[in-house]
Amino acid sequence: MDPKHVKVPPMMDLTIDNITENTVTINSQGDDQRLTYVMERLVTHLHDFARETRLSTTEWMAALNFLVRVGQISSDVRHEFILLSDILGLSLLVDAIDHPKPPASTEGSVLGPFHTHEAETIPNGELIAHDPEGEPCLVVCTIKDVQGNPIEGVKIDIWETDSTGHYDVQHSDRQGPDGRCVMNSDKEGVFWFKAIVPVPYPIPHDGPVGQLLKLLKRHPWRPAHMHFMFEKKGWDHLITALYMRNSPYETSDAVFGVKKSLIVDYSTADAAIAKKYGVKEGSKVLKHDFVLVSEKETERLRDENALKAMEKLGRKVKLLNHLPVPDVD
Amino acid sequence: MDPKHVKVPPMMDLTIDNITENTVTINSQGDDQRLTYVMERLVTHLHDFARETRLSTTEWMAALNFLVRVGQISSDVRHEFILLSDILGLSLLVDAIDHPKPPASTEGSVLGPFHTHEAETIPNGELIAHDPEGEPCLVVCTIKDVQGNPIEGVKIDIWETDSTGHYDVQHSDRQGPDGRCVMNSDKEGVFWFKAIVPVPYPIPHDGPVGQLLKLLKRHPWRPAHMHFMFEKKGWDHLITALYMRNSPYETSDAVFGVKKSLIVDYSTADAAIAKKYGVKEGSKVLKHDFVLVSEKETERLRDENALKAMEKLGRKVKLLNHLPVPDVD
Repeated sequence: MDPKHVKVPPMMDLTIDNITENTVTINSQGDDQRLTYVMERLVTHLHDFARETRLSTTEWMAALNFLVRVGQISSDVRHEFILLSDILGLSLLVDAIDHPKPPASTEGSVLGPFHTHEAETIPNGELIAHDPEGEPCLVVCTIKDVQGNPIEGVKIDIWETDSTGHYDVQHSDRQGPDGRCVMNSDKEGVFWFKAIVPVPYPIPHDGPVGQLLKLLKRHPWRPAHMHFMFEKKGWDHLITALYMRNSPYETSDAVFGVKKSLIVDYSTADAAIAKKYGVKEGSKVLKHDFVLVSEKETERLRDENALKAMEKLGRKVKLLNHLPVPDVD
Repeated sequence: MDPKHVKVPPMMDLTIDNITENTVTINSQGDDQRLTYVMERLVTHLHDFARETRLSTTEWMAALNFLVRVGQISSDVRHEFILLSDILGLSLLVDAIDHPKPPASTEGSVLGPFHTHEAETIPNGELIAHDPEGEPCLVVCTIKDVQGNPIEGVKIDIWETDSTGHYDVQHSDRQGPDGRCVMNSDKEGVFWFKAIVPVPYPIPHDGPVGQLLKLLKRHPWRPAHMHFMFEKKGWDHLITALYMRNSPYETSDAVFGVKKSLIVDYSTADAAIAKKYGVKEGSKVLKHDFVLVSEKETERLRDENALKAMEKLGRKVKLLNHLPVPDVD
């Protein structure tokens, strides 16, 4: 850019006290009001953090080197920044902001770093987990709207670990996807499959996030759970998980995902169930009814919550594409 | 960790309103008071940022993917997170906090991502930049304390770009270090060398930081400057740069480094200078006197500034190893 075309006021001699306003000014040259607002908040909080801790150069450098390592260990099958966001409670927070749930609907939970896009689409009744050490488990679910009407044709992603607590992608010698599938709900909103009973497992802690947890004297464990993701045009995208009642770490989940409404009991198959679904009598059964919310209703609720929250924070905003930007008249 | 040994209060059903206190609690199990405090401030600001922007899942994911790219483009010779910190004004801020300067001393400036540890140590008078297109320049400096006494045996790192505005490490076909050296001040506190007149250059903008600058309609340019770093036991580590007066981008430096006291004039060598230093008459000369501060004085000033600033912020702290931690008595 020709220096003559620089439109910001001249900046020089920046100090602890004036660096923030100058950074915000130089970041506010674009037309994207949302980007300008997000950057203004980001820079302000980043600088306030440094000012309130009197962050030292040594700490700053350690943090930047830590972030490099977080990026460098990430790959197609490992997103260490999602993991970092998870253990800092940010993932839970963003999900709660973006996907408000009316009372009768299924609550969300953290996505985690192990969802992939390579799972096969299977019909009802198939086995998705082939670990011979896993305890077999029949899973029978429905998807309905808040009025109780079944929703057909919802795409459902399901994923779980093997009996050792590892997802398929964590095995370097894996042959292909396992412990995961994509399904579609039928006319009655039903989908069912055969899997294994989930087990508690530690999130990957051989990388920088694990080192941070160790420094903080935190354990990396998650209680036993199975992941579910629901997508259908017109319905709010639901990422959630079902947690096994009384699983260890139920109240100290390393990524803050557990909700009472998502804790489930496993029953055992009686003769009728065993016959109907082709499983052994006495084997574990998980039944659950999921309730989706329409996109429209979620949007309405999200807008309402945003405006209420911003008013409470004393911020004068308007919504642009359903996201807050300063309302400068 | 055995779930029985988890000491934090049971957590479940985390929401927009209670996630922060719970994350802070689980992060506060260790004995390192400073780490606990830094994490408390970090998590609070991170969460407030998400709450005040009503950060969407799409924006969150875009940010995490951006951070992965910042980590992945980083290498031994490119630290994209330093660059990100630079353009967000954080580097300037941390330097200002950590290295307060009494009035008579040389001010600091940003380190930037291009300092390396492979430069050769040279005696006075050598040529450090071998670019034939560069305009030759004699640099004659002294290092003194605030009372005007010369400081001997200071290790000085010097680095600058070639005439195209690239550091040696930015050339994939480079043979070894160029445009950089390490020197030691002599008994009179003098060090002098031959270099080239620096030119304005854009910070590396072929990566994620460049994409961000573009999104923000910011230019990536820095005014012409030469980097200096000073180290000697007992003296505060000084990272600074000398900026050429009236260089383009002097008042819109992409990384906020320019200070009036660091802007210098280049003179031309007269016959006496030319003879004394073995340069052509009429060639460019840069003379500068650097003033270092003792570690003790910097520490005293840093402590004083920290306590004053924290009092102004209404934070009740004490200093532990010269860094604030909450004073909980």
